[in-house]
Amino acid sequence: MKKLINDPDDLLPDSLAGFANAHADIVRLHSNPYFVYKKNKPTSPKVALISGGGSGHEPLHSGFVGAGMLDAACPGHIFTSPTPDQMITAAATVENDAGILFIVKNYAGDIMNFEIASEIITAPIETIIVADDIALPKEHSMGRRGVAGTLIIEKMVGAAAEREHNLAYCKSLGDRISDNTASMGAALTSCTVPALGKPTFDISETEIEMGVGIHGERGRSTQKFTDATTLTHYLAEAIYDELKPKKGQEALLHINGLGATPLIEQYLIYEIAQKFWSKQGVTITRSLVGNYTTSLDMAGCSMTLTLLDSELTTLWDHPVHTANLRWGC
Amino acid sequence: MKKLINDPDDLLPDSLAGFANAHADIVRLHSNPYFVYKKNKPTSPKVALISGGGSGHEPLHSGFVGAGMLDAACPGHIFTSPTPDQMITAAATVENDAGILFIVKNYAGDIMNFEIASEIITAPIETIIVADDIALPKEHSMGRRGVAGTLIIEKMVGAAAEREHNLAYCKSLGDRISDNTASMGAALTSCTVPALGKPTFDISETEIEMGVGIHGERGRSTQKFTDATTLTHYLAEAIYDELKPKKGQEALLHINGLGATPLIEQYLIYEIAQKFWSKQGVTITRSLVGNYTTSLDMAGCSMTLTLLDSELTTLWDHPVHTANLRWGC
Repeated sequence: MKKLINDPDDLLPDSLAGFANAHADIVRLHSNPYFVYKKNKPTSPKVALISGGGSGHEPLHSGFVGAGMLDAACPGHIFTSPTPDQMITAAATVENDAGILFIVKNYAGDIMNFEIASEIITAPIETIIVADDIALPKEHSMGRRGVAGTLIIEKMVGAAAEREHNLAYCKSLGDRISDNTASMGAALTSCTVPALGKPTFDISETEIEMGVGIHGERGRSTQKFTDATTLTHYLAEAIYDELKPKKGQEALLHINGLGATPLIEQYLIYEIAQKFWSKQGVTITRSLVGNYTTSLDMAGCSMTLTLLDSELTTLWDHPVHTANLRWGC
Repeated sequence: MKKLINDPDDLLPDSLAGFANAHADIVRLHSNPYFVYKKNKPTSPKVALISGGGSGHEPLHSGFVGAGMLDAACPGHIFTSPTPDQMITAAATVENDAGILFIVKNYAGDIMNFEIASEIITAPIETIIVADDIALPKEHSMGRRGVAGTLIIEKMVGAAAEREHNLAYCKSLGDRISDNTASMGAALTSCTVPALGKPTFDISETEIEMGVGIHGERGRSTQKFTDATTLTHYLAEAIYDELKPKKGQEALLHINGLGATPLIEQYLIYEIAQKFWSKQGVTITRSLVGNYTTSLDMAGCSMTLTLLDSELTTLWDHPVHTANLRWGC
């Protein structure tokens, strides 16, 4: 394993310090316990959005802390849940007289630790569970995993909070976006967790993992490697079956690189996907292409579709000023 | 080789179509010959900035077309120079009564084809040659390669053009930024060009290529693989010896991912680098971390330092609105 690291134990703290220094105009780093939070606290009451989860998915979540999106992000060790003290201290730091909203990807450890935190925090609190990965059936015992749809919820709910919608509204908005969002990924290679030093799973030079999770979890099926069009249609058809969009529906299409896949390939996937959706009568009115929810150095991509209405479109377009998503300001 | 592609010959056109569709609010794609250009032509005269080069380095250059940066980008096939007809047609499209400025990375084919174009174009024209890669000695027969410093020149000169500085001023500004910019990269793996289907160069699990070029060109030396601090100091010391910054100097530090290296590692390199420069009395006042000048799926990173003065800082901060660099608007 070759990685740009020193001692694997120092990777997260040193990388967080670098992140906070590189973006000192936007964020601050709290060190004991670790969380990244918005440099400028809003001057009027606003629902405080806190997310977090295992590291290794950067820029998710720390790269989305800032005006119009998250108030704080709590990073666990690589592929490991953050601990309740992180969320509790973060909440105390960013709470701003309008309650706390947790945005939590559906993994057992994350759910448990955010729940413990929410029981201890005395401010009004709600939680949005993100479970957009349709690779697993809805009735799976652990539920579905949260993947690249997370940032769409963080963005839109972040905009709603900035527009001074209250906690109950932000919570129900998040659930509504969840209901209208579906994702699925495909891996060409495994990722390698630095502390382990070997690939998370085995995949041969002739295979592709359809429906892979962002920690290298097995997906729907290990298939024979195929061309970009076949792969893209596989992902898109699964999403189509899930969301069943009507003709004339507007949507946001997000092609997400998992880490090691070049942009030139991601835009090819986007092009194929856009044509697919157009054929189904779905108009892609908003797009996002790039490495946003990664799985360390995994090669592959995921597709996320969010069905839009005028409110969600307005919230997507609302100014955002974070390290890795920035427009309108 | 596993890549998200169909026929390798279709990768570039289909990917460009996807790029233009995903960013239809910013750019347009011209198809025969290929170039990406700014959707909105400025209403008053402005020096038109045109860059280009082989594809496979995305987001460079197409991702930097838009307000405050490039007027057009001419993509060649992967790792292949664009042809003169691309630059000639692009120039005719974006020329806006204040002349044309070519920004060209120093590779023989690029230099030759931009030069042919400049001989045919009748509008006033100047060329900035980017040769920021200090891996090779200054007196190398081909000169030094242009790498990640290119985007810094594109950004700052783009801002100057937007502020209606004239062609001569923009040209001399670009040369001045070049003189104050140095880069060096390190590769952990090779990249794989889709049409070739095998790695561009051999590198073992225990080696690192110091001073690698963005097409996988050999660098200063193939070394035993080492830790992040040793690697970062190697790059930084080479840049220090080149630019010889005085104590109290302000600088822009750009850590660039070459493709397959996760952000968590890039921010670690940034942190180590920032400490290095601080120790030399250089204050990092501007930062950029991420995959900006890539080499397909190569793992590794590069460091670029630009010595700043108040004008260059102001030009860096000037609003920019492109697919992959956006702030202030």
